[in-house]
Amino acid sequence: MKISVERAALLKAMSRAQGVVERRTTIPILSNVLLEASGDTLSIRATDLDVEVLEQIPALVEQAGATTAPAHMLHDIVRKLPDGAQASLIDDPASGRLEVRAGRSDFKLATLPREDFPVMASADYACDFEAPAKVLRRLFDKAKFAISTEETRYYLNGVYMHVADGAEGKALRCVATDGHRLARVDAPLPPGAESMPGVIVPRKTVGELNRLLSDDEAVIQVGVSETKVRFRANGVSLISKVIDGSFPDYTRVIPQGNPKRMEVDAAEFASAVDRVATVSSERSRAVKLALSEDRLVLSVNAPDSGAATEEVAVAYSEDPLEIGFNARYLLEIAGQVDRENAVFLFNNSGDPTLVREGDDESAVYVVMPMRV
Amino acid sequence: MKISVERAALLKAMSRAQGVVERRTTIPILSNVLLEASGDTLSIRATDLDVEVLEQIPALVEQAGATTAPAHMLHDIVRKLPDGAQASLIDDPASGRLEVRAGRSDFKLATLPREDFPVMASADYACDFEAPAKVLRRLFDKAKFAISTEETRYYLNGVYMHVADGAEGKALRCVATDGHRLARVDAPLPPGAESMPGVIVPRKTVGELNRLLSDDEAVIQVGVSETKVRFRANGVSLISKVIDGSFPDYTRVIPQGNPKRMEVDAAEFASAVDRVATVSSERSRAVKLALSEDRLVLSVNAPDSGAATEEVAVAYSEDPLEIGFNARYLLEIAGQVDRENAVFLFNNSGDPTLVREGDDESAVYVVMPMRV
Repeated sequence: MKISVERAALLKAMSRAQGVVERRTTIPILSNVLLEASGDTLSIRATDLDVEVLEQIPALVEQAGATTAPAHMLHDIVRKLPDGAQASLIDDPASGRLEVRAGRSDFKLATLPREDFPVMASADYACDFEAPAKVLRRLFDKAKFAISTEETRYYLNGVYMHVADGAEGKALRCVATDGHRLARVDAPLPPGAESMPGVIVPRKTVGELNRLLSDDEAVIQVGVSETKVRFRANGVSLISKVIDGSFPDYTRVIPQGNPKRMEVDAAEFASAVDRVATVSSERSRAVKLALSEDRLVLSVNAPDSGAATEEVAVAYSEDPLEIGFNARYLLEIAGQVDRENAVFLFNNSGDPTLVREGDDESAVYVVMPMRV
Repeated sequence: MKISVERAALLKAMSRAQGVVERRTTIPILSNVLLEASGDTLSIRATDLDVEVLEQIPALVEQAGATTAPAHMLHDIVRKLPDGAQASLIDDPASGRLEVRAGRSDFKLATLPREDFPVMASADYACDFEAPAKVLRRLFDKAKFAISTEETRYYLNGVYMHVADGAEGKALRCVATDGHRLARVDAPLPPGAESMPGVIVPRKTVGELNRLLSDDEAVIQVGVSETKVRFRANGVSLISKVIDGSFPDYTRVIPQGNPKRMEVDAAEFASAVDRVATVSSERSRAVKLALSEDRLVLSVNAPDSGAATEEVAVAYSEDPLEIGFNARYLLEIAGQVDRENAVFLFNNSGDPTLVREGDDESAVYVVMPMRV
């Protein structure tokens, strides 16, 4: 292999690749990226055996070929090259080294045989559809905060993407929950997605997907099978195994009849919660919400360190209510609200509470109360 | 105590105070700040028994008094208050709580008796002088990277400030070393400092001092005794014990006769060192410098992971020389060079090397070579 590539394009691809490559791995080849040059393209592939990312960038290929080189080291080198540099990559199979040349710098990196690199078997994607990056980003972004980190409940360690009956017909829906809070986000079902099997997209994949979806203009090709999901756009493919488990029936958790409606400025609510929570140093900080006619009083009482209360103007016309929540959960949900107002629907102090962005039902959040 | 203060002034003072207060301390009172209100001033004092910071801010004092409250919590609260807020602090000795009110927020913090707060005994400062903040900042900033972190050599865990014979007469000099590298920085001796005893200012104090010296226009009042040092400006006092030990005779370490002079663009040199060091993952990364007529070749050889070389244009007209250094040490020293060019003075590959900023002798650095 003997090629020349632009530093900027290589850096972009390598930063994506090194996101997938684990820093500590016991399998040496998984520390490497697979570099394959042919035609006028360099393909860069990285994997952790669960997620694979493949990016193709333009290259001046003098001699086609393939090898593998340490991902993080190659990324660091490219990052440190000056802006606008042109890098040559020359593989010398005899010495087992990949030479990287740019300006007056010359690097020789240890390689491993390309044959050892585990390329993910391409699956037969039962369902293939297109969706704008913006739409997918919203679905995953708004759901991901609720992903569970409990490894014993592995089937909650991801975002459940599936087809559902939304408020306005069939929807592409993302749901995540950790048992304490839940996010359910809908988008109109893209054509071709009707037959999509429901899949649980793992947390790490959701994180990597974020970069792919950052381009507002992009249209993403989505492929879904029972075991894998693939996202493609702009010369990048992200392929991931999905979590092998059943996502629980979340619909039972979403309260239907909560009659007590409170409307509040989301940003003001969030800063007030943040402030009152300061006095408690415990990990799970309980905030009490005391509601009366158009008035919300937030309070925290931490016997050892102190107490805090704050009043917030709200729209509320039901019977007085007192209910407690974990401060962090309230903050995370308030942070999802893009509109000015958040709408809270309460039943009573022992029941789950529903949170919406204004009257938009395409994203709803559920949060369990806690005793205060 | 019942007072009203501006959030901005309180926040500035509290962030300084919480820098001194250790997060984890076994002595509860050391987690608190001492608040004392009288006249039209609020004094805020924090200590870790080695360093004390005292700041006075304007306050509307309705009722004078004093108490202590948790430093980090009070800082967090003030930080989270909206811009432009006015905060009331009301101490209720009966309940043992300090009330903080601002807008519609109300906090009650646990207090501890002011009598328990350890105020540092004021020393008799044998020597008292004034120096511009800029001058002191340069002295400490350029020296501090070389401070040792080895606790067994506690007398190296700070910056040695003393009076010395500089290139242009008597100088106020700061020196730090960890045995591998050394920094020696001079400034003209301020009037009144002639009788100053040499003191070792501890690392933490140097860090806190940084904030105090950030105001370019400030003139700092410096008081020095055998056991303490005090810096004062803009209503802030920083008092610190000095390290009880003798700083070693560093002059023997500074080479006098190194005849081989290399001049190099400091930024270009630093990026080249940074790049070649990438291929080695070891903690102490050795970079080899190979010098010949106007040419420097930097190289790193890490048998496991690879090799890197880079050529840098330099001014050099002596015999060829090969010498190795720890990459991090070279980067840190190059980072101190404010001018375009760094001047290296070598003897041979086993001897300490001297580094200067151009031909300025008011800041010199020494770095020990390592085998490569």
